[in-house]
Amino acid sequence: MLYGAYLKRLLKAAVAAGLSRCNRKTSAVGCGFFWVMRHMRAQSHKTMAKSKFEYVRNFEADDTCLQNCWVVVRLDGRNFHKFADQHGFKKPNDDRALRLMTKCALTVMEELNDVVIAYGQSDEYSFVFKKRTNWFKRRASKFMSHVVSQFSSSFVFYWQDYFKDQALLFPPGFDGRVVLYPSNQNLRDYLSWRQADCHINNLYNTTFWALVLQGGLSNSEAEEKLKGTLAGEKNDILFLEFNINYNNEPEIYRKGTVLIWHKVEETIEKRVTTPDAPEGKTVVVKRTRNKVLPFHVDIIGDKFWEEHLEILADDS
Amino acid sequence: MLYGAYLKRLLKAAVAAGLSRCNRKTSAVGCGFFWVMRHMRAQSHKTMAKSKFEYVRNFEADDTCLQNCWVVVRLDGRNFHKFADQHGFKKPNDDRALRLMTKCALTVMEELNDVVIAYGQSDEYSFVFKKRTNWFKRRASKFMSHVVSQFSSSFVFYWQDYFKDQALLFPPGFDGRVVLYPSNQNLRDYLSWRQADCHINNLYNTTFWALVLQGGLSNSEAEEKLKGTLAGEKNDILFLEFNINYNNEPEIYRKGTVLIWHKVEETIEKRVTTPDAPEGKTVVVKRTRNKVLPFHVDIIGDKFWEEHLEILADDS
Amino acid sequence: MLYGAYLKRLLKAAVAAGLSRCNRKTSAVGCGFFWVMRHMRAQSHKTMAKSKFEYVRNFEADDTCLQNCWVVVRLDGRNFHKFADQHGFKKPNDDRALRLMTKCALTVMEELNDVVIAYGQSDEYSFVFKKRTNWFKRRASKFMSHVVSQFSSSFVFYWQDYFKDQALLFPPGFDGRVVLYPSNQNLRDYLSWRQADCHINNLYNTTFWALVLQGGLSNSEAEEKLKGTLAGEKNDILFLEFNINYNNEPEIYRKGTVLIWHKVEETIEKRVTTPDAPEGKTVVVKRTRNKVLPFHVDIIGDKFWEEHLEILADDS
Amino acid sequence: MLYGAYLKRLLKAAVAAGLSRCNRKTSAVGCGFFWVMRHMRAQSHKTMAKSKFEYVRNFEADDTCLQNCWVVVRLDGRNFHKFADQHGFKKPNDDRALRLMTKCALTVMEELNDVVIAYGQSDEYSFVFKKRTNWFKRRASKFMSHVVSQFSSSFVFYWQDYFKDQALLFPPGFDGRVVLYPSNQNLRDYLSWRQADCHINNLYNTTFWALVLQGGLSNSEAEEKLKGTLAGEKNDILFLEFNINYNNEPEIYRKGTVLIWHKVEETIEKRVTTPDAPEGKTVVVKRTRNKVLPFHVDIIGDKFWEEHLEILADDS
Repeated sequence: MLYGAYLKRLLKAAVAAGLSRCNRKTSAVGCGFFWVMRHMRAQSHKTMAKSKFEYVRNFEADDTCLQNCWVVVRLDGRNFHKFADQHGFKKPNDDRALRLMTKCALTVMEELNDVVIAYGQSDEYSFVFKKRTNWFKRRASKFMSHVVSQFSSSFVFYWQDYFKDQALLFPPGFDGRVVLYPSNQNLRDYLSWRQADCHINNLYNTTFWALVLQGGLSNSEAEEKLKGTLAGEKNDILFLEFNINYNNEPEIYRKGTVLIWHKVEETIEKRVTTPDAPEGKTVVVKRTRNKVLPFHVDIIGDKFWEEHLEILADDS
Repeated sequence: MLYGAYLKRLLKAAVAAGLSRCNRKTSAVGCGFFWVMRHMRAQSHKTMAKSKFEYVRNFEADDTCLQNCWVVVRLDGRNFHKFADQHGFKKPNDDRALRLMTKCALTVMEELNDVVIAYGQSDEYSFVFKKRTNWFKRRASKFMSHVVSQFSSSFVFYWQDYFKDQALLFPPGFDGRVVLYPSNQNLRDYLSWRQADCHINNLYNTTFWALVLQGGLSNSEAEEKLKGTLAGEKNDILFLEFNINYNNEPEIYRKGTVLIWHKVEETIEKRVTTPDAPEGKTVVVKRTRNKVLPFHVDIIGDKFWEEHLEILADDS
Repeated sequence: MLYGAYLKRLLKAAVAAGLSRCNRKTSAVGCGFFWVMRHMRAQSHKTMAKSKFEYVRNFEADDTCLQNCWVVVRLDGRNFHKFADQHGFKKPNDDRALRLMTKCALTVMEELNDVVIAYGQSDEYSFVFKKRTNWFKRRASKFMSHVVSQFSSSFVFYWQDYFKDQALLFPPGFDGRVVLYPSNQNLRDYLSWRQADCHINNLYNTTFWALVLQGGLSNSEAEEKLKGTLAGEKNDILFLEFNINYNNEPEIYRKGTVLIWHKVEETIEKRVTTPDAPEGKTVVVKRTRNKVLPFHVDIIGDKFWEEHLEILADDS
Repeated sequence: MLYGAYLKRLLKAAVAAGLSRCNRKTSAVGCGFFWVMRHMRAQSHKTMAKSKFEYVRNFEADDTCLQNCWVVVRLDGRNFHKFADQHGFKKPNDDRALRLMTKCALTVMEELNDVVIAYGQSDEYSFVFKKRTNWFKRRASKFMSHVVSQFSSSFVFYWQDYFKDQALLFPPGFDGRVVLYPSNQNLRDYLSWRQADCHINNLYNTTFWALVLQGGLSNSEAEEKLKGTLAGEKNDILFLEFNINYNNEPEIYRKGTVLIWHKVEETIEKRVTTPDAPEGKTVVVKRTRNKVLPFHVDIIGDKFWEEHLEILADDS
């Protein structure tokens, strides 16, 4: 209808311009007009085509996360064992890598909405969205892809700030997953699980690399020696053979990193214009804002949670 | 049991060393021993704790994709309208951005398994995993997170290769989704939908920016002028007012980019040692390998699919 | 607002009736009024309460079946081994039970929408909804619960029609599941799987019960004898020991039951009034209608499907 | 291999029997043997076929319910408005129907595992499986289909016990759904929602049918009169026009029915044989067992839950 009206209008204009004949090869307006007419048919065909194809949107599945559950996104480095070797990571822990990971996690928390706590160790990080978040209508794919994407791009973006003397050789990958936890206890148990994992791995790795780097064992000899040992036995090896008191190892290695929001007071200099200083003057302004800060503390016991009641608070 | 045996062994060793008394503050081995005993209890507690917490793994949902369906992952730039402004993207199309996007998509196809075709336009890219893929047991979260992660890290990693004079100001984000298509027709309709979208948006944008940049209209004036216009009317504006024949615009703008695998023949120089040339000599070797190549062609009609039957082939 | 207006109206009516004082215990209208007022507060509280509680609807998950897939609902009798014993089912096949199962399946097909084929054997039945069905918006829970519910109530309802001399002792249960099949081949393979299962079980059961009922073996002796035997060996036992040619066994036992829609011509007597017969006369009318009919035929090979192309037809 | 050995054994037996020639039409064993051989190939083909088809099992999706959530199955009568008319249900409430519904719900609770509470009103019933149930590995389809099936078959089975003078005309249908509730408060709010719904509907229906049956209004006149009225106004109509104090209506109508488990003490007569009574004597034994009992009480307030702490108890 509308289209027909438009054609008539165009036609009238063309006739008015006296363009009754036209050689297709000339670039005159009239020829353009005829070309346009033929072309319009094609274009309009394509536009209709789009609506014809749009049924494919109905194949998208709804992946809304169940209400009133904590939403956890955990990401892990892909093939990071090899990645660490290729980029000369220090064994058993590389401070540059750990600090870069935390910088990326911090960026995730500040860029995305509603992450109340994050916990990281080794090449993994977990992000906890608050129970009542309605960010992107709680769609799991949105939570997961935004976290993984922001983390991955940040990893490359900030690499040079932490690895001064080591170029990034290729773009790394991280995989992600979404898990729901209905109760506060479930969530705490999840985070405890990851921190217990940190402890067990770090104790193993610390002992393993002491045996290899200081003890002169081959990798497979060290592996053989540690096979089936209990935590206490590993502590013993460290202490008796290498004079390392595991408990004095840096907390960032033993506990991993917790990121939470803190109110911090900032002092800012501002230039203002006042009646008595029309040319403007500098004033010092204090203001409070929320900032993400890292901690390397135990989150398995109750102490941390009692000191930060707001994290699990119902209305958080 | 084992633990008790270990304690006994330790104790025996300690006694053998004549360490019957020990001041806690000394750093003697024996004291370490007592410290170890106390510590072991804690460590072992933590190890047990881990298994106590591990029940939380049961909260992970199975997200296996239905068998015998095409798995499509589509990603889109987050807030890319603003991102484009901040990084001085050329209007209506920025070649550097389009080529960088394609470089990232190419990296995704080469790093991940089983992507048979990808299609991109503007700030989005779709990746099609073959029907019978069993990569990561067809878990949707794996498909999605690996694609989004590899793409995002590549975007930062390769930025400078395409944006010589423009620094990347911050790490960008991409969101992702997974959609399943049961039939070949459904998949073709999906890709047609995206290419029809490319056409419609590019025609609009080309006209809009011609009106603004060449026609001197304000953004809102251009928007007003284009409101409700049909494809043919936009073609007409371009042609009559700006002497632009839309059909002569670069195909990369009008069609977007299709990435598919191609067998290419490579010529490689190799240094080999032979009996008659024990010092080694250079030989030229030809070999065929699969490589991802970009095309800017129509994928709505049958021609492309008839020329590339292997893409939809049952055993692909 | 509305509520206030109502109160005012009530109050005016009360005052007009001269009811300035009221003893709560009298049953006068005015007292009713005060009671109503107090009660209204409670009622209105409950009405508001309902809207306060309605947020719980958001916890319902979307379970839409992927588009363009065959939707299969299979149900199985719960503890039917015991049920069969308690109700004196004949071994190895009870015709009454098989015919009752088919009557129930037939009721399901006629009561619900869009089932194009059903297949049953033993205590199970599979119902196939057509690919393009949009019944209840393709919600899996609707497909499953309606099938299972209609089948279960029909089982009790029609029991006595088939079990003349055996009362139903208690209401039986059936469980159900929903499975999606993207391609016609997948669907055919699903149905072939069930029919192959029918064959294997029936051959086993026929041989087992021949050994027990005719051969005088105990159940465990028969079980022991059949352990690990191939199909041919069972055929052989039947033939050599009991002179039973398995291939002559009734097809309903060996093939199970397929239910499909058939156009049938019906002859109906109708009473009509016409100008030449104002008092009405009986006319015989022929009409075609769709009816579900049972078959006991092979559905693994191509023949059945070639004879009933409409079942898998794209537009079915 | 095994198959070949079997053939050899058969062949040897055949030869030993001197059956060197055989007319296919005779029913001699030897001919059977040849028939068996041909047939065996077919049978074995079918057995292999089954394993060839079994891949279709991989199309079944995992529908495990999230751990640590209440699992609610709600069922509703299908087309029960019409069903009620056809079976002469009394308006606004039919005691026979309500009592039959409760009998079915009671059967569901006693036949299935782990239902801690059920709530019913009108033609719907909700069943709550305890948070920690692991019945059928928490598969949603199992919860739903077993509830719906048991309820539906019971409805027909027990019909005549409640509807003495009214035959069941056809097998009725019920649909079902599964919803998860993470917290106790969510569950209570769900049940409150259903009870508030009961209240609102029953008040409406009571008033509507008073207007129709006692007031002589037509259905549409009654509908018109009630349109937009508040709870208080309906109470008022009942009281002022029909002298009905809604609060004196039976609680089963106003509150619906709650089913919970109760420990009850039973006295049973048992026949035992003792040394002093070798011929056996009757003794009276008291024993405690769990039984489902119905209540018609408020479950929106705290009182009910405080009196039945065990329902929501963590370890229930």
